[in-house]
Amino acid sequence: MNNITMTLNADELIRMALKEDISSEDVSTNSVMPSDQAGEVDLICKEDGIICGMDVYERVFKILDENTIVEKYVNDGDAVKKGELMAKVKGDIRVLLSGERVALNYLQRMSGIATYTNQVASLLKGSKTVLLDTRKTTPNMRIFEKYAVKCGGGQNHRYNLSDGILLKDNHIGAAGSITKAIEMAKAYAPFVRKIEIETETLEQVKEAVEAGADIIMLDNMDVDTMKKAVEIIDGRAQTECSGNVTKENIKNIIDSGVDYVSSGALTHSAPILDISMKNLHAV
Amino acid sequence: MNNITMTLNADELIRMALKEDISSEDVSTNSVMPSDQAGEVDLICKEDGIICGMDVYERVFKILDENTIVEKYVNDGDAVKKGELMAKVKGDIRVLLSGERVALNYLQRMSGIATYTNQVASLLKGSKTVLLDTRKTTPNMRIFEKYAVKCGGGQNHRYNLSDGILLKDNHIGAAGSITKAIEMAKAYAPFVRKIEIETETLEQVKEAVEAGADIIMLDNMDVDTMKKAVEIIDGRAQTECSGNVTKENIKNIIDSGVDYVSSGALTHSAPILDISMKNLHAV
Amino acid sequence: MNNITMTLNADELIRMALKEDISSEDVSTNSVMPSDQAGEVDLICKEDGIICGMDVYERVFKILDENTIVEKYVNDGDAVKKGELMAKVKGDIRVLLSGERVALNYLQRMSGIATYTNQVASLLKGSKTVLLDTRKTTPNMRIFEKYAVKCGGGQNHRYNLSDGILLKDNHIGAAGSITKAIEMAKAYAPFVRKIEIETETLEQVKEAVEAGADIIMLDNMDVDTMKKAVEIIDGRAQTECSGNVTKENIKNIIDSGVDYVSSGALTHSAPILDISMKNLHAV
Amino acid sequence: MNNITMTLNADELIRMALKEDISSEDVSTNSVMPSDQAGEVDLICKEDGIICGMDVYERVFKILDENTIVEKYVNDGDAVKKGELMAKVKGDIRVLLSGERVALNYLQRMSGIATYTNQVASLLKGSKTVLLDTRKTTPNMRIFEKYAVKCGGGQNHRYNLSDGILLKDNHIGAAGSITKAIEMAKAYAPFVRKIEIETETLEQVKEAVEAGADIIMLDNMDVDTMKKAVEIIDGRAQTECSGNVTKENIKNIIDSGVDYVSSGALTHSAPILDISMKNLHAV
Amino acid sequence: MNNITMTLNADELIRMALKEDISSEDVSTNSVMPSDQAGEVDLICKEDGIICGMDVYERVFKILDENTIVEKYVNDGDAVKKGELMAKVKGDIRVLLSGERVALNYLQRMSGIATYTNQVASLLKGSKTVLLDTRKTTPNMRIFEKYAVKCGGGQNHRYNLSDGILLKDNHIGAAGSITKAIEMAKAYAPFVRKIEIETETLEQVKEAVEAGADIIMLDNMDVDTMKKAVEIIDGRAQTECSGNVTKENIKNIIDSGVDYVSSGALTHSAPILDISMKNLHAV
Amino acid sequence: MNNITMTLNADELIRMALKEDISSEDVSTNSVMPSDQAGEVDLICKEDGIICGMDVYERVFKILDENTIVEKYVNDGDAVKKGELMAKVKGDIRVLLSGERVALNYLQRMSGIATYTNQVASLLKGSKTVLLDTRKTTPNMRIFEKYAVKCGGGQNHRYNLSDGILLKDNHIGAAGSITKAIEMAKAYAPFVRKIEIETETLEQVKEAVEAGADIIMLDNMDVDTMKKAVEIIDGRAQTECSGNVTKENIKNIIDSGVDYVSSGALTHSAPILDISMKNLHAV
Repeated sequence: MNNITMTLNADELIRMALKEDISSEDVSTNSVMPSDQAGEVDLICKEDGIICGMDVYERVFKILDENTIVEKYVNDGDAVKKGELMAKVKGDIRVLLSGERVALNYLQRMSGIATYTNQVASLLKGSKTVLLDTRKTTPNMRIFEKYAVKCGGGQNHRYNLSDGILLKDNHIGAAGSITKAIEMAKAYAPFVRKIEIETETLEQVKEAVEAGADIIMLDNMDVDTMKKAVEIIDGRAQTECSGNVTKENIKNIIDSGVDYVSSGALTHSAPILDISMKNLHAV
Repeated sequence: MNNITMTLNADELIRMALKEDISSEDVSTNSVMPSDQAGEVDLICKEDGIICGMDVYERVFKILDENTIVEKYVNDGDAVKKGELMAKVKGDIRVLLSGERVALNYLQRMSGIATYTNQVASLLKGSKTVLLDTRKTTPNMRIFEKYAVKCGGGQNHRYNLSDGILLKDNHIGAAGSITKAIEMAKAYAPFVRKIEIETETLEQVKEAVEAGADIIMLDNMDVDTMKKAVEIIDGRAQTECSGNVTKENIKNIIDSGVDYVSSGALTHSAPILDISMKNLHAV
Repeated sequence: MNNITMTLNADELIRMALKEDISSEDVSTNSVMPSDQAGEVDLICKEDGIICGMDVYERVFKILDENTIVEKYVNDGDAVKKGELMAKVKGDIRVLLSGERVALNYLQRMSGIATYTNQVASLLKGSKTVLLDTRKTTPNMRIFEKYAVKCGGGQNHRYNLSDGILLKDNHIGAAGSITKAIEMAKAYAPFVRKIEIETETLEQVKEAVEAGADIIMLDNMDVDTMKKAVEIIDGRAQTECSGNVTKENIKNIIDSGVDYVSSGALTHSAPILDISMKNLHAV
Repeated sequence: MNNITMTLNADELIRMALKEDISSEDVSTNSVMPSDQAGEVDLICKEDGIICGMDVYERVFKILDENTIVEKYVNDGDAVKKGELMAKVKGDIRVLLSGERVALNYLQRMSGIATYTNQVASLLKGSKTVLLDTRKTTPNMRIFEKYAVKCGGGQNHRYNLSDGILLKDNHIGAAGSITKAIEMAKAYAPFVRKIEIETETLEQVKEAVEAGADIIMLDNMDVDTMKKAVEIIDGRAQTECSGNVTKENIKNIIDSGVDYVSSGALTHSAPILDISMKNLHAV
Repeated sequence: MNNITMTLNADELIRMALKEDISSEDVSTNSVMPSDQAGEVDLICKEDGIICGMDVYERVFKILDENTIVEKYVNDGDAVKKGELMAKVKGDIRVLLSGERVALNYLQRMSGIATYTNQVASLLKGSKTVLLDTRKTTPNMRIFEKYAVKCGGGQNHRYNLSDGILLKDNHIGAAGSITKAIEMAKAYAPFVRKIEIETETLEQVKEAVEAGADIIMLDNMDVDTMKKAVEIIDGRAQTECSGNVTKENIKNIIDSGVDYVSSGALTHSAPILDISMKNLHAV
Repeated sequence: MNNITMTLNADELIRMALKEDISSEDVSTNSVMPSDQAGEVDLICKEDGIICGMDVYERVFKILDENTIVEKYVNDGDAVKKGELMAKVKGDIRVLLSGERVALNYLQRMSGIATYTNQVASLLKGSKTVLLDTRKTTPNMRIFEKYAVKCGGGQNHRYNLSDGILLKDNHIGAAGSITKAIEMAKAYAPFVRKIEIETETLEQVKEAVEAGADIIMLDNMDVDTMKKAVEIIDGRAQTECSGNVTKENIKNIIDSGVDYVSSGALTHSAPILDISMKNLHAV
């Protein structure tokens, strides 16, 4: 993760997560370790997967004590194997113990998302269809989760409601028609924005492409309808397939020729990757 | 969720999550809706499950506009059926649209955890063993996730490092022995704390119970060893079984007679419960 | 200004501005007014101009005391005349006095920008060229200043570094070439982003349009060169003229046929519009 | 700018300004520069003026990356010439690019105010009259703008409502009379405060000086009236001339013999000083 | 306490104090009260004293639940008697229980300071000498403690380092002499500041008065020396006696004729006033 | 004080306290010291006592300037003598002057509490009774004050409402009975919590011990009643004596055989320990 992003956008969240876990002090550790003690611990993967979050993992310990050293043997995006030694962390044992849980909570979740994304993306290999995430992220985890999708081989859809236009059925209803909605967005939104619009029928697809949409979302269409939509659009706009895309059904979608397929499951339902810290010892 | 907890401990996090999704403005909505428009939308469950997070869901809209009304037809902890109408939300359509994603992100995740916990807890029915969560929660989501475990029928373990003593192998190593670690914790920690200690062998169990531990964690023991541990302890301390407990293997554990079984999966790997907002219309 | 934007993105800044002006208490007011006293004051324009910031003005008083009433007779974007009564503010006189300066500081600056923007935009009337702002805003005032540009009849360029791609000479240098830079941006950035690239010569314009840039910035080109650039591009990308655009030279630019012209002066050098609060009296 | 002031009072604002510009990441820079690259850039003045904000400029880059080095060749308060090399900035090119706009936004505005103040102050040279700023500063910019006034050769009036007493017509009205208002302020306010009071007529001036005001503001008086007021006061209080003072009319004011003249325009309407970063290159 | 001060300057501190006491939830109350229950409780004084902090006490409950009603029978600054009913608090019993401790912690401390100040101030009755506080306040309590001094009959010295000049021996040393220090302060500080300087000998007093100090602090002088100092100054500056002033020795100081006497003990060593909440019952 | 606690839980409060004292700048120091000047100052005790807060004292200066060096000759918990040199502080004199008051305000208060606690605890020497603090701490000072109690030889009761169960008369009333309240707490609270309950009569003591309370508070009982209570409990629960315990009456309590005695006075009414900074000089 880029240092500037870490400093400006992630640090405050990591610090809050640490305070969530240590609201006054780590009573257990402070009970038995009244003073500094240099130590070392191994970070070991307990499942095969794609790793993501090594910098965040490191940052947790650095926030507690900037003298902590994390020697990393893998980078974000690397495939790791069960049993692999991923890093060694060196510093005051109290820091290693007090930061362990928060550091792993980030690393396991980010790696879980990267691993799951990688599995889904690999099903799209050989096609031109690109895998996208959504805004179905965990509250206050988006900066980490969208990054994990990228490390896993997916692409990011818009970051949030402020940096992308997506006109859904309710926006269209409010505007009066697809044509009118696109017109209003072009008049209102900063001109650097592409305009994406949701469609559910081929009629809507036609209207959208003629109204000048940059991206047309094909929402919950079956594969045949999507194929026809892609034909109608004929390169005049990009296409995104959306709606309950899963590992199981994604293969069919490729055949439809859509440019992008988006999946909420990447961020809302990926299980964690099991990782642990072992062999803590004084040095 | 208790109002005081919401005000003091959850509100700031919800507000941050809203800012994460709206860093300057909701461009799509503001493009097509230049002014207020009263509307109404249905909250509908798309899967069977246990609901959790209705107050948080409501709070998201109330933060955006305190005049929004959420008529709730279900309460946290209730079982819901696919297709069930769970609530109606009434207010400025712009508020309904801009808050939708964050509100659902909380509700789906909390309900996912409650549902998964409920499934695991039901496997313990009829036994005296109680299901516990862990600190393996998503960063900055603990207040919501621990509450969801309770709604699903589980119990909470300690909230964080500041409100519970759990002496693990590294703490014991630092102290010199189980006996010494317990002694140091009794001397250091506020006297209102119970002292829990991790054991991996029956020797350790014996030492722990004699040293006056209040709770003895049986870490990664097989069922037979756990049975023996429970016999040795003989009611002089509470027992907690820990270590990769899953839906699949939890039934065996009951036979061991342990008081508690803790599972990180409740919070780190439960998939979401699918819920959506439908039928938005002006009123 | 939209209520949601006000609540999520402006309120905290307004509150900080109030604390900047009242770090412990308003000593003068508290000296002479030991208790509540209902009063009323007029908001009067002292120059002709375009008004902007009425909701922010109101919000300042509402934050100090939610019972304050601001009766507004003009709306953001309205032309106002010297001497015009723009609003009446009713509430505790102490609130009116303590909030006056911060409320006016916002209103005068936002109206100054709207007025100046309006003057520049009027020079573009009749042409297809649209006036844009830049990121040359006052620190911690962007949400207010970009909104003021819109009220004055300008359009917004990207909001910040996170929601728009603009590849400048240094980005191009780092990538190796215009073609390579555009390629890298397409691979990295969320697919909903348009890609804008800066050009200084007609060679660069050709390369940019062939590499698939969505927007081509014509940086510091003379009018003749711009005309040729527009011919080369021939509708395959949008065009933006940038570089020391002022009220004085903007007329020439229209002839070049560019789609957009951006001006930093709108936000960095507009003088305030003079507005004052008069006739405070008890009621 | 003093280090303590920077750390305690400016840093948080600078950090907020950076987040305003980078809400998730600098997409353009991160697209083309996936990793660190040492570089160097020149800070060059494009107009003659008085420089102010060099430490703030430096701090922007230091917050993004503490290893950035800013070699400064000019100090706050120095006169600079068009084309002058003011500093070299050395560090990761991504930091130089991502911080450029915010750093310049501060530096240009602060230098603009210093330059404008200097021009006005030079008109007072040879007289005993001292130039003062007001509270008409940009919200959340006061600490920077008041400092810029000083660098330009002006003096600061009170910082905010909490650290100075200024009894205006409405305060006098509330108290009942000038005499009563001064009495109440002496009874209420910390004894270390001087008491300033606004007067509009010579009658009021007489009452104010007899009631023991420390400073008497002569509000919107013509030069002859001011002269008479100064005679009446006869050194028993300090005098401040206030009300639409501009570069154009300030010369006349000197003749009146007032001690101070305050001008809102210093902070509310000074145009920026044009400064840019040039010649970025890898090293 | 003034509403604006409460909103802008006290609210955040009160909210933090509540979070300090409720980091996740009030476990005891939530255990036994799963839902709302209207109730009422009496606020009763257990010692004679001067009350201070009634608005802060109320605000604690209002922050937890804005529907809570506090019927106040006494106001800040009132003398109260042991056993006196000071207020009734009505609202959800859970709010009354969860807020009790924080509300009383503020009220008892503020009343303790008001009571102690009142005792000291009463020793100065009949003399012209006024009692002052200092900056020896509890961290993050100054807004409350300085207000309490006023309620007890004392006056406030400067609020903090930013709103008052006090040149101590080290400042004088740095400047070179008393004369030089005063000169530098006049040149640097906003002109609305009075300049106070610390003196330890009559020589210094002479130099200070001649250099134009507004206030002269007589530091740790005996009564006779103070008398001489007052004679030397002869009304040309105000005088403040400082240095270990206590209830015991303050009477002597009056004779010296100093204008002010300051005492750190008012805020750093006043014991609390005992107050409790009794007779909680459902209604 | 532990580094992690300092970083996560104390730093923000210390920084706020510094801003409370320096809302814009230290005007006095900046007047006479326009630039850096290396210096040194002594920290000297002016009374005998127990020292506490040396790390917090150091941290104040480090926050202002990380290059400041504090050479400590005493540690928290050490007994100090009047006149003893406790530390030397070396750094920019402006930092030493600007941080002095806040640093001492923390150190004096924390040392005052440690000293008073030590005096009370010494009265319990030779008995098995342990001295406890309460939640009657100064708002936003708990982390410092509870630590000071420990340094003085006391033990900490629960940290706040979230980490300990204490069922008082109102909780018992709400539950219906002591037995029912304990039952509800066992069902609701995390299983790692001990359950303490307040009793006022021997009947209540009996009910509490039989209901399985872990700790029984004997509230405002006379010594004879406490003795009987201890007999009834007979080691089945721990006992805490509470209610206006002071230095004067604590000796009697020992005889009752209670395990713990808690005293609010430790934190709410201890006077400060007088400490000062002397001999500042340039180096």
